[in-house]
Amino acid sequence: MRDEAIKAIFEPESIAIVGASRDPEKVGYLILKNLVQTGFKGNLYPVNPKVREILGLNSYSSVEEISESVDLAVIVVPAPTVPEVLKQCGRKKVKSAVVISGGFRETGKEGEELEKILIQIIRETGIRLVGPNCIGVDNPHIGMSMWVGVKKKGPIGIVTQSGLVGTALECWAEKEGIGVSKCVSLGNKVDVDEIDLLRYLADDENTRAIAIYVEGIDHGREFIQAASEVSRKKPIIALKGGRSKLGVRAASSHTRSLSGRAEVYEAAFRKSGILTANSLEELYDFAKALSFLPLPKGRGALVVTSSGGAGILASDLADKIRLELPSISERAEKRLRQLLPSHCVFSNPFDVTTTTSEAFQLVMEENVADEEINAFMPIFADPLPRAAEAVKRIVEKTDKPVVVCYVGGAEVEEREKEKMHSMGIPVFPSPERAVTALHALVKRYESLMKLQASNDQSEGRRSLQV
Amino acid sequence: MRDEAIKAIFEPESIAIVGASRDPEKVGYLILKNLVQTGFKGNLYPVNPKVREILGLNSYSSVEEISESVDLAVIVVPAPTVPEVLKQCGRKKVKSAVVISGGFRETGKEGEELEKILIQIIRETGIRLVGPNCIGVDNPHIGMSMWVGVKKKGPIGIVTQSGLVGTALECWAEKEGIGVSKCVSLGNKVDVDEIDLLRYLADDENTRAIAIYVEGIDHGREFIQAASEVSRKKPIIALKGGRSKLGVRAASSHTRSLSGRAEVYEAAFRKSGILTANSLEELYDFAKALSFLPLPKGRGALVVTSSGGAGILASDLADKIRLELPSISERAEKRLRQLLPSHCVFSNPFDVTTTTSEAFQLVMEENVADEEINAFMPIFADPLPRAAEAVKRIVEKTDKPVVVCYVGGAEVEEREKEKMHSMGIPVFPSPERAVTALHALVKRYESLMKLQASNDQSEGRRSLQV
Repeated sequence: MRDEAIKAIFEPESIAIVGASRDPEKVGYLILKNLVQTGFKGNLYPVNPKVREILGLNSYSSVEEISESVDLAVIVVPAPTVPEVLKQCGRKKVKSAVVISGGFRETGKEGEELEKILIQIIRETGIRLVGPNCIGVDNPHIGMSMWVGVKKKGPIGIVTQSGLVGTALECWAEKEGIGVSKCVSLGNKVDVDEIDLLRYLADDENTRAIAIYVEGIDHGREFIQAASEVSRKKPIIALKGGRSKLGVRAASSHTRSLSGRAEVYEAAFRKSGILTANSLEELYDFAKALSFLPLPKGRGALVVTSSGGAGILASDLADKIRLELPSISERAEKRLRQLLPSHCVFSNPFDVTTTTSEAFQLVMEENVADEEINAFMPIFADPLPRAAEAVKRIVEKTDKPVVVCYVGGAEVEEREKEKMHSMGIPVFPSPERAVTALHALVKRYESLMKLQASNDQSEGRRSLQV
Repeated sequence: MRDEAIKAIFEPESIAIVGASRDPEKVGYLILKNLVQTGFKGNLYPVNPKVREILGLNSYSSVEEISESVDLAVIVVPAPTVPEVLKQCGRKKVKSAVVISGGFRETGKEGEELEKILIQIIRETGIRLVGPNCIGVDNPHIGMSMWVGVKKKGPIGIVTQSGLVGTALECWAEKEGIGVSKCVSLGNKVDVDEIDLLRYLADDENTRAIAIYVEGIDHGREFIQAASEVSRKKPIIALKGGRSKLGVRAASSHTRSLSGRAEVYEAAFRKSGILTANSLEELYDFAKALSFLPLPKGRGALVVTSSGGAGILASDLADKIRLELPSISERAEKRLRQLLPSHCVFSNPFDVTTTTSEAFQLVMEENVADEEINAFMPIFADPLPRAAEAVKRIVEKTDKPVVVCYVGGAEVEEREKEKMHSMGIPVFPSPERAVTALHALVKRYESLMKLQASNDQSEGRRSLQV
């Protein structure tokens, strides 16, 4: 029953938008318009007693007036009116609600009291509630995107205490043709929280990696428990807001959640197998890498590039974070010297100079079985056509990750990048970001190994006890 | 005379492309095609004895066959043929040459010998030479872009030992509608080097900031001298390739330049007032910030945002790099409480929540004269229209920098960003990158103050000696 309500948040068959508006400057218009434009697959019921129709849809005077059943109510009315609307939803047997409206705990004493009333009502009605003070829930797989109207179906699941982190990741993923699976903005999280969502996303077949932004966690122990279970199944990447004095000060006036000490969170994340991101772009890059790429079984990578400079920048960062660039085998070098022009640099980074994408393919192919090479990093740094095909050939031949960077290739770059993204091959925009993404894969592998070892240990202990 | 030859590299009135080709896969085609498409303002002379016409242009059998004068020869023939072509250029009184062809020092002993011959010829002929083993010279202000065909005229000057760094910066600047002023890829730099180019760009009126990528510097003392002079006039930002063991190994097989110890370079950069960038994206962001924005006269910034999360992420990084977020004055707070909804967070970061771009403008306006606030950082983190106008109003009212971030605003973001870039207001893609860009402005201000102080000191000393 409770699980079904959580499911109704992400996969509703019908949505009532309470506070829908005809005024294009109002949030109640924005959300309805987005749901129409992203092609929501179920029924949409605008609720606004003052008008008869919005965007071609019948407008209802209240949720109770809707004759069909309603799975999800999205509530955008002024804060003082929210309790009454929620009660109506209870009588209508609406399963879940997303309260967009602000004006609760985050605004002070009065709002705090109002929030307590919400909590009371959801206890009585059994409605599961996201928010208040949030920007909604998205699931492009059923054409549902409330705040920014993203359409692309993808593998990244997002749980965030800040609307921005959600919309930033969604917009970047949309622009790159990568897409997200689910996105939920938690707001003041009076009910639905990270723990509910991690458990839901763990079983969501469209989600392959989970990006999470937290300022403060209320139930630390349960969170660690849930995260430890989930991260055995799927990678979780976390960005913590409020890691410094100024950041904590800002966080305390945001959702007023207790934003604990950074080290405590880092330890908790490590313990539960969560990867830490240090910036918004890292959160995106890591989620992108982890939802598309297989894991490398070690720290050795082969960098192949058409630009010496790109190879050097990649090497500098790789060295700093202790990735390894092992030499290619004598056998591979000998073969490649026969196949490629002599002015190539037959080393690691392997510089094919400005030849063709096929040269990249050859170099990777010849080293595909090398046990010291756990990952490939082709850095295309010129207008090189057919890069997508070359990479695809390698991806088909190996379960080692191919972390692609394409930069400085003008229109050819744009075209090839688009092709790769449509094939599910992520492309990173600079050598350093590609190396950092590979590092995330390595850390995920190492953390999984650790989780498994502790599993084996506890199983061992159990069998001893038997 | 020598200066005129350097000028001919960037501002030629006529270019001969020796080794121009009809084959779309050849570099000799790419370069000619780009020069045609970017609308080079002078005369173009393809040189290829085997064909009569390329891309609608008459093809010549040699440079000497061209009856008009030639300022610049772009040479793309195989390495062994380059000396002969250069000699012909000498007889034809061509002022300067860009040798794209590789196959010199970077390939070993034989190439090294060939390179010595080039040096001999340019000594005899007085031709100034860029390269060999480079990707050319761009000046969008006269419609000249050889490798990636960029068109946008802008303020960023680029000097790079790696083609990639040039094309990456150029492509990013082109895509954002920001543009570059000049870009030169040095290659093996047998003649024209960083010192020549810094001096040229210092006086180039289209260049407002200089981005430079170095692997190794040959004439350290002269470089420091030139850079110290130039950085008094214009900001120089440097990215050093080969800062680690792996990076140095990669660099030594790239242009074979001695890539010295990172600390030595950092000290030299600091001494000459050069700002250090730590990644390709930083190099771009810093050049973008420094070529468009005025300098803040201190470390205090006011962050204004529609997203609590964005404010927190900005605060976390600001704290780490010791920027300050001073409280707004009581007077400003009182005024703003009258003008804005009560659910705003009247602090720093100032959270206008999701109201309008006009709210951003109001907050900045009310604090524009505050002496503790040296810079403004509006972070638009929702689809907020009219952001560009709001920022423009502030830019017109103050000489403090307004460092804009816009993220998570879907199509509205794209539109507003385009507007701002066309107004010469740079926009950064994440809170962290905006903070890092502001940090670059602060460091530039502090470095300028230091340079000035040492100026005053040496002038003081001089007057004492008199």
